[in-house]
Amino acid sequence: MKWPAHGSNPQYLYEAMNLVMPEEKIDFSANINPLGPPAQLKRNWPQLFEMIADYPDPKGKCLRRRIAVKEDLNEEQILIGNGGAELISLVGRMLRGKRALIIQPAFSEYEAACRTNGCRADSFLLEAGRWDLNLEKLCSLIIQYDAVFLCNPCNPTGIYYSKSEIQTLAETCKEHGCLLIIDEAFYDFVAEYESITDWVKDYEHIIIIRSMTKMFAIPGLRLGYVMASEAIIRKLACMQPHWSMNALALKAGEWCLDSDKYIEETRELIARERNRLFAFFAEKHFLSSPSRVNFYLLKDPLLGNQLPLFEFFLQQGIIPRHTMNFIGLEGEWLRFAVKGPQHNYILMEALKKWRNLP
Amino acid sequence: MKWPAHGSNPQYLYEAMNLVMPEEKIDFSANINPLGPPAQLKRNWPQLFEMIADYPDPKGKCLRRRIAVKEDLNEEQILIGNGGAELISLVGRMLRGKRALIIQPAFSEYEAACRTNGCRADSFLLEAGRWDLNLEKLCSLIIQYDAVFLCNPCNPTGIYYSKSEIQTLAETCKEHGCLLIIDEAFYDFVAEYESITDWVKDYEHIIIIRSMTKMFAIPGLRLGYVMASEAIIRKLACMQPHWSMNALALKAGEWCLDSDKYIEETRELIARERNRLFAFFAEKHFLSSPSRVNFYLLKDPLLGNQLPLFEFFLQQGIIPRHTMNFIGLEGEWLRFAVKGPQHNYILMEALKKWRNLP
Repeated sequence: MKWPAHGSNPQYLYEAMNLVMPEEKIDFSANINPLGPPAQLKRNWPQLFEMIADYPDPKGKCLRRRIAVKEDLNEEQILIGNGGAELISLVGRMLRGKRALIIQPAFSEYEAACRTNGCRADSFLLEAGRWDLNLEKLCSLIIQYDAVFLCNPCNPTGIYYSKSEIQTLAETCKEHGCLLIIDEAFYDFVAEYESITDWVKDYEHIIIIRSMTKMFAIPGLRLGYVMASEAIIRKLACMQPHWSMNALALKAGEWCLDSDKYIEETRELIARERNRLFAFFAEKHFLSSPSRVNFYLLKDPLLGNQLPLFEFFLQQGIIPRHTMNFIGLEGEWLRFAVKGPQHNYILMEALKKWRNLP
Repeated sequence: MKWPAHGSNPQYLYEAMNLVMPEEKIDFSANINPLGPPAQLKRNWPQLFEMIADYPDPKGKCLRRRIAVKEDLNEEQILIGNGGAELISLVGRMLRGKRALIIQPAFSEYEAACRTNGCRADSFLLEAGRWDLNLEKLCSLIIQYDAVFLCNPCNPTGIYYSKSEIQTLAETCKEHGCLLIIDEAFYDFVAEYESITDWVKDYEHIIIIRSMTKMFAIPGLRLGYVMASEAIIRKLACMQPHWSMNALALKAGEWCLDSDKYIEETRELIARERNRLFAFFAEKHFLSSPSRVNFYLLKDPLLGNQLPLFEFFLQQGIIPRHTMNFIGLEGEWLRFAVKGPQHNYILMEALKKWRNLP
């Protein structure tokens, strides 16, 4: 069976599993802000129509300038992209013929980007259940590699490695001229997040990838950016297709940068719901990953591979993310987005039903 | 001076030329349908908002199926892309380390895609003023190349080479296993267009690139597709970033496929306006290219390089496309989109003013 490479688009999952997709379903497989897009975006939607008939600014200059100011960088240290996935793909092209180490489990596009570009990618496996960074061992391997991929906060575990933890890694990478690629797609969900943007100024070999589609619930629009040294940005930009970002994403991105209050509300909602869910899981003897963001791993410890539970959920119209293609998980966990109270309630009820609990 | 690589986004042009951009301006530099997006798209715009909060279908299956039916191909012979520019960039990556011949003048992204990917690109220069294909000479060179790029109808001249003309080229390419890449970005503006889609079934080495942003006036959304053998489509698809097309473009694309009447109206408007313009140019002794589409080359034969005329236009708020980066033109022509009656009138009035005519 060929598992879909990612969450969302559940039609491909039901098709692969040869199951009929129910009319009513709740998709927990995409890690998107349950509040939906910021109100300003909805309010201004009609005026975006006027923008479709003109070419987008190929450099996304206005948004780039806004991000530069916000992150205290030069514009030349930023590249906007057509979603995080495009930026990962561009980084992969930079690594043609090199050797990369991917800290796993992690978003599967790093490995795909390496493979597509003839970059040999090895896995550095974190111990399942705790997923500690194991810095000593990790740092001892850096000398063998041209690049290291770290997803932080980590998709799929939701674990956030603190600035002080990864500083050692960054310094070891600097010492050995090893490129350190940190994917911060979910950074803005972490209440205690500490910015590492200033490292871009000091470390020539660091690439920070950010997505704007998770927090702002605009994955359909596609928007992300990279922060790195001017030299790296130039290399990436020269491989990027012309007019890669659409005009709506660029404009929406500017509005999203004004959404501090909405980010605050989101974090509060997610923390509240996550606490509620985790208390329930503990009480009912399910295991979950110590997530600090809007998704987490879940397992029934009475099962090894979670396929029976996965199928049970799908039949109820509850769509988890399978973990078959997460190296180091291979189906032994399921990933869920933290959604709003009602949806999370339905999930908990389904888990009770699974256990034949009242 | 660094000229902008493309039309549209005139701020970069005025900036490069160190001119103040007037408040009122008419942009003739982007070849977009002057009617604007189809009415259905405007009508349905509000409902598109709901789509931004979900990931797009990474395969664009619905649109792909619709195009397959329309073109009488298998879905596996079609790849949707984030605009024609992305698809050209993917083709360039297929040509890494190869040798390509570009029939010039042509859209500058072919050469850029080759250069970025270490593909040596030579120019086959058509004689300026007539731009005949010179098939005999062209075909004699094919044996030296892995790929040939033909833009048909040709951007920037607007000339359409008939099916029978390019069949010889296709057969020579087939004979020598040379990839023939035909960019049909503007095919639907040609009233007498003859489809070559059936060649995809017989010729293993043909790639047809189409854009949906010109006819349907949606360059801000980004949408195009490629038709080729299943083997080529697989190669291109595996290099394409995940979720490359945004959800709005995919949905809008489906609606655009229902726009036969709008295409008819567009062709009539363009033909009428083009005839009016060309009659004026002939009468006032300006030279133009024998375009069959929605743009054309123009020159004042009293000038070699058209820079003085270009500057004159810019100062009037009339924005032509410079041709500095079109190999074989190098500034000796200016390119204009055919716009609606009022804008074309303003252009003609400006030309009279340039010549000091009443």
